Amino acid sequence: MVSESVRVASVGLGRWAKTLADAIQRSDRLRIASCFSRSEKSREAFSRQYGCRIADSYAGLLKDPEVEGVIITTPNDAHADPILHAAASGKHVYVDKPIAHAMADARAIDRACRDDGVILAVGHSARRLQGNRKIKAILDRGGLGKPVMAECNFSHNRGLELSPDQWRWHKSKSPGGPLIQLAVHHADTLHYLLGPVKAATAMTKRLYTPAEIEDVTMTLLEMESGQLCYMGSNWASQGSFYTYVYGTDANLYFTADFNFWSRSDLIDRHSRLEIQCRGSSDRKPITLGEGDMFREELEDFAECIRGRRKPEVGGPEAIAALAVVHAAIRSAETGHTVALKEILAD
Amino acid sequence: MVSESVRVASVGLGRWAKTLADAIQRSDRLRIASCFSRSEKSREAFSRQYGCRIADSYAGLLKDPEVEGVIITTPNDAHADPILHAAASGKHVYVDKPIAHAMADARAIDRACRDDGVILAVGHSARRLQGNRKIKAILDRGGLGKPVMAECNFSHNRGLELSPDQWRWHKSKSPGGPLIQLAVHHADTLHYLLGPVKAATAMTKRLYTPAEIEDVTMTLLEMESGQLCYMGSNWASQGSFYTYVYGTDANLYFTADFNFWSRSDLIDRHSRLEIQCRGSSDRKPITLGEGDMFREELEDFAECIRGRRKPEVGGPEAIAALAVVHAAIRSAETGHTVALKEILAD
Repeated sequence: MVSESVRVASVGLGRWAKTLADAIQRSDRLRIASCFSRSEKSREAFSRQYGCRIADSYAGLLKDPEVEGVIITTPNDAHADPILHAAASGKHVYVDKPIAHAMADARAIDRACRDDGVILAVGHSARRLQGNRKIKAILDRGGLGKPVMAECNFSHNRGLELSPDQWRWHKSKSPGGPLIQLAVHHADTLHYLLGPVKAATAMTKRLYTPAEIEDVTMTLLEMESGQLCYMGSNWASQGSFYTYVYGTDANLYFTADFNFWSRSDLIDRHSRLEIQCRGSSDRKPITLGEGDMFREELEDFAECIRGRRKPEVGGPEAIAALAVVHAAIRSAETGHTVALKEILAD
Repeated sequence: MVSESVRVASVGLGRWAKTLADAIQRSDRLRIASCFSRSEKSREAFSRQYGCRIADSYAGLLKDPEVEGVIITTPNDAHADPILHAAASGKHVYVDKPIAHAMADARAIDRACRDDGVILAVGHSARRLQGNRKIKAILDRGGLGKPVMAECNFSHNRGLELSPDQWRWHKSKSPGGPLIQLAVHHADTLHYLLGPVKAATAMTKRLYTPAEIEDVTMTLLEMESGQLCYMGSNWASQGSFYTYVYGTDANLYFTADFNFWSRSDLIDRHSRLEIQCRGSSDRKPITLGEGDMFREELEDFAECIRGRRKPEVGGPEAIAALAVVHAAIRSAETGHTVALKEILAD
């Protein structure tokens, strides 16, 4: 237990900052002390809604002795700069996934937080869904027999509504489109379930989005442990989220309702995990608990600050997930299978 | 309607010959007049079970004026020889999928049947499942909006029990393992739903089977029409069969119970098709009729013989599906995306 709430400041005050702030309000382990965004309108609205102070500048926020950590939800390509400044100011860092848009930024972020001795936590929340937690527990106790393969999908149609004033429109800011925004969750979850990725091959298409980025992506992964995995992700269809894991003794089918994605206090209630056991085609429901993935990952961040321990998803885990995305992008561009070590060595 | 039953002879009398003979017994459009296999025990048992004559040799069977067509269920690598002889004898040909193990054999089969003026029908039955028929009807009337991508899986664990005396053990007879035996169905169904395949990229692994062949395969397809498709297929996990199609207006999720695969008179009752419409996460069941995929494809064969028309799945369709399998095999071997035209031009 945390004796005293950890005081955080929200930075980059778009839709996702509010989703995370709502999660913080459901916890007694953190509280929002301050906020900052370049938009005066955004910071005033955020301050009113969450009852926190407004910093007069990002530099001012980082000088505030009350602030122990920052919650970064700026665009993907604008993670490194505020994080490097925060680390240099001795502030702990929670950043939404992906850790960055580029491997070089990701490595700089991880290095700076280590060198400056601050906690770095990255918001790969999907592994905390009750369905994924239960799959992990069943795999760990050998409940599927030997694991054979896994399939995942995370898709929605928000790519159809993009406009050039949004950062997700641009390849330079959000390379891979749904790969870096959605599939990156599954890249982390598959690593969590089956271990590191060895190689990736992918196909991507730009079919219906007006934006620069691809809106339909499919990626195959060879895991170090031998299994094959599939990750599908698009920004053009109706919402979908699933994780299937096939084993020699049983298969698991986990589906979560995408429409509750930003309501992490409710999504587990709108999830379904089924098991198909040896010789049967019946899919029997497995009862899931009710968690709150955003609250829990933020509480993990708070406990790491108080306890000086490493978060479940820190720099190395987030770099591994981003490397899968970049391996997929390179594979789709070249038509070759790409080894992860090639991306990690770049 | 067929005025008089078409008289066929079953050739290669293993498990699948009986599955098809059971389907013929459910129809008044065909009847089994004769049978042949190299095994005396098999042909006597088959003759007793289905009340047909036994030919003293394959040459003798082909000289029998009562026999109008042959039903070939010999091993994949032993399709060409009996088919070329049948065509030269003026007998029509139904052959189980895949059309052959190799592209050269497939082309020889197609050419011989054309040159000799006999019907060639190939048993790509999966497109006749009521779920796939309904998906096609919904796609054709624009019920999904613009199609985005599709995902399929067809898996079971029979690769774990193979022994060297079985042809499926050997790469030379059944290259690709589950790719050529199971995924080839989805290759045909995806072509049926979305049109021809442009390119394939794949990963395959030999994880748990004692046989020579790979037992875990994943393939991505780029369709000529632009969509991406995924086909998963393994011979190591619990049985699975699904076809998912994602569109801008709705997604369709079709699952069939693998344990009823050889009972085509029952499988549609053990199938589920659900639609998820715009803005909702509810999956509403769509009522499916009850068909009988094996009976129907054999009746199509019979009607083609009487009506001198082309079967729904003949040489060109079956060659296209086999080419997808060989593109996937080559991609997995080389680590490159493979254009279908490269395989078709070999």
